[in-house]
Amino acid sequence: MALSGFAQTEDSLLIRRLADTILTDGRTYGNLHLLTKTVGPRLSGSAGYYKAEKWGQQVLQEASADKVWLQECMVPHWVRGGKDSASWVTTTVGKGGPRSKIGSYMEISGLDILALGNSVGTGPKGIVAPVVQVRNFDDLEKHKDDLKGKIVFYNYPFNPLFVETFQAYGDAVRYRGAGASRAAKYGAVGVIVRSMSSSIDNVPHTGALMYNDSFPKIPAAAVGLRDADKLAEILERKGDGSESVDLFLRTNAHMLPDTIAHNVIGELKGTEFPDQYITVGGHLDSWDPAEGAMDDGAGCVQSIEVLRALKAIGYHPRHTIRVVLFANEENGGRGGRKYAEAAKAAGEQHLLGLESDNGGFTPRGFTLSLSEDKLAAIQPWVKLLKSYGVYELEQGGGGSDVNPMGRQLGAVVGELRPDSQRYFEYHHARSDVLENVNKRELEMGAVNMAALIYLVDKYGL
Amino acid sequence: MALSGFAQTEDSLLIRRLADTILTDGRTYGNLHLLTKTVGPRLSGSAGYYKAEKWGQQVLQEASADKVWLQECMVPHWVRGGKDSASWVTTTVGKGGPRSKIGSYMEISGLDILALGNSVGTGPKGIVAPVVQVRNFDDLEKHKDDLKGKIVFYNYPFNPLFVETFQAYGDAVRYRGAGASRAAKYGAVGVIVRSMSSSIDNVPHTGALMYNDSFPKIPAAAVGLRDADKLAEILERKGDGSESVDLFLRTNAHMLPDTIAHNVIGELKGTEFPDQYITVGGHLDSWDPAEGAMDDGAGCVQSIEVLRALKAIGYHPRHTIRVVLFANEENGGRGGRKYAEAAKAAGEQHLLGLESDNGGFTPRGFTLSLSEDKLAAIQPWVKLLKSYGVYELEQGGGGSDVNPMGRQLGAVVGELRPDSQRYFEYHHARSDVLENVNKRELEMGAVNMAALIYLVDKYGL
Repeated sequence: MALSGFAQTEDSLLIRRLADTILTDGRTYGNLHLLTKTVGPRLSGSAGYYKAEKWGQQVLQEASADKVWLQECMVPHWVRGGKDSASWVTTTVGKGGPRSKIGSYMEISGLDILALGNSVGTGPKGIVAPVVQVRNFDDLEKHKDDLKGKIVFYNYPFNPLFVETFQAYGDAVRYRGAGASRAAKYGAVGVIVRSMSSSIDNVPHTGALMYNDSFPKIPAAAVGLRDADKLAEILERKGDGSESVDLFLRTNAHMLPDTIAHNVIGELKGTEFPDQYITVGGHLDSWDPAEGAMDDGAGCVQSIEVLRALKAIGYHPRHTIRVVLFANEENGGRGGRKYAEAAKAAGEQHLLGLESDNGGFTPRGFTLSLSEDKLAAIQPWVKLLKSYGVYELEQGGGGSDVNPMGRQLGAVVGELRPDSQRYFEYHHARSDVLENVNKRELEMGAVNMAALIYLVDKYGL
Repeated sequence: MALSGFAQTEDSLLIRRLADTILTDGRTYGNLHLLTKTVGPRLSGSAGYYKAEKWGQQVLQEASADKVWLQECMVPHWVRGGKDSASWVTTTVGKGGPRSKIGSYMEISGLDILALGNSVGTGPKGIVAPVVQVRNFDDLEKHKDDLKGKIVFYNYPFNPLFVETFQAYGDAVRYRGAGASRAAKYGAVGVIVRSMSSSIDNVPHTGALMYNDSFPKIPAAAVGLRDADKLAEILERKGDGSESVDLFLRTNAHMLPDTIAHNVIGELKGTEFPDQYITVGGHLDSWDPAEGAMDDGAGCVQSIEVLRALKAIGYHPRHTIRVVLFANEENGGRGGRKYAEAAKAAGEQHLLGLESDNGGFTPRGFTLSLSEDKLAAIQPWVKLLKSYGVYELEQGGGGSDVNPMGRQLGAVVGELRPDSQRYFEYHHARSDVLENVNKRELEMGAVNMAALIYLVDKYGL
């Protein structure tokens, strides 16, 4: 879209006003403080999630939404089942080897584990089994005759050579998602995965697995990077006389029946095309070990701030702007699908579904599901965004909550792409707390989201 | 510089090899760990500084520099003088006002202060004086007849509307630099400044002041943002019956005679133009309250990593590449001036002086002191850097350590421009510790610096 000089100046001034209110009177960080410190963890079906729904309604009202409501959907209800999960490795050293001069003995080494989301538990007594380390699925296949009754340890590293850490995650996450069933296929009784993380600490990172119903459901848990290295070291020195390495694993996780939850929705009514929608959102649920500050409290408060800022500067959108706080992104994706289905059933026309679910870090760009021609046409917008840190409008999809709008409604979908270097230090781990989100970086993301929503509202896509 | 397709591929592969070694076998974070946790604070003249010199020589040797040496220079030697500095505000409420129903009484409220660098102390007994709050220098002029015997409190905010926080710093830092002498001109006996910081905590931030020799040298200290707000609130409620607000201030700072320190220098000898130099550096000294992880341990370890990575991939530079760890940036700038003077005296030709002194955050660009034409000619390099986060080669100067090379030697100077959102949370404060530097972000800065140095070595400027 070639903008005239006049329009550019007008847009630039309006975006500056959005930035000014977000950077001075903004509610992003304050709202995130409330969500993380008074609501806290909020996995689907947990008491926290229902508190979060109330929080969402309240802050959307405070942000001066014209209308705020709940949209019901059924969600899975997985529970970790108590805090007494545990794991340790027992190395029994026999009499024959070089390390056994003092006779047969046992070494016990604890592991800091975290059950994977959606996984089954071991039962209260736990399980004990020999451990087999595999580096990847090819390696698993090589060991397939040796897995019966064993615990499989997927020790696949998070590859530091990917500059974009989401690529390293995409590369590694299949071991979390599919590792349990692929090991169960060969008779394994449990799975331990190396966390998908670039961190240098030992915090384990959870996240959803998907069981393949053709095979037994076996328990699965993550270990942090140092424990993964320790376990590997123990297994690799077996040759020196250790006779067996057994792993004890106890997790209490289990699925309860599906339960009711809600997407929380707020909107600013459009003046010209009230029946055409531009949505912006993040997901309201979060994993249970922490506060979900980054994943995805950040995206929720940024989306709400877009509405607040537009209203605060007195902007009257041409289209209806909707903020959607999606239910159940983490272990089911039911909220995103529900929203798109309901919109389709109502015959609603959606121009754009924009998502923020990549952390509240300093913004760098947006992806949008546009053709090359249409993407080229909006490149002049980059001039307007660049002063606020966004220098790229790229071809790409949205996140998992807005992609159903693309498929079901033909909407353009897209997402904020903040800097990714720190994301997988905190992702799905107990370290995902407010203290690891920077106020200014969070606000700069909201500024760019508000600016993009304004431009789409004004010029279309 | 229009690169041929072949050259681009070759450059892209070489830069990928630099990135690979930095992201997998790199020493940036390990070296920073050593510097921060075993050397620690290292202000000019302190024992820490001499330990840092040894660290610098050792890590440059480990990085396989062809030659490592020290370059002597005289530096100021300011000391904080003990940890028993203190400050509190005494509000004496008289009998007349509405708040004095219970009679005359006193409220005492402590302040967390940090003496400004280069400042004089109050003497062991401290000083007590009424406080006058001023918002800026204009406000100071309005109060000029009321300052005799008083302590001036500069309560100038760090403006959140600047997207680039360095602009907010440039806007506010004059109150730290010149505030004491401008208040002393009107008879003030001490100065308190609001810290130049975007933080939301109460940590005070130090930094150098410059006395104007025409006026008495009076003590000066910084307070954190919450204490600044508290002090303002106390002063602003004076009207309700408080009869006076006195501030007690005790600092023990003083200047000792100049002492000897050194720039630490390492180089890779050029194969084609050994007498032409490309330098890259950061400053080795740091403020005393913390570890100087970000300011400027980050720049030191990134610069050393450039040399290590070039050597590690077997690259033989055409020009001599020098790493300079500058002495005394923080409270004198003597190391940077010394290096340029010595190079001029030796008739050395310097192509580029590149600096990293803006924090080890995710990289966004470089500034270079090039003409518009020359800058336009190297824009194709951006294609090569963008995959690693740098999308801008902009016109601009270097930092204070390399700018003398521009003035004295006619070298092009420039600096790495990382994302600035977090910098002034930690700058010159006790929070500038390793834990606030992210390993990946630090490494990505080194990758881009190494890539730029390679491109300059290959194509010139």
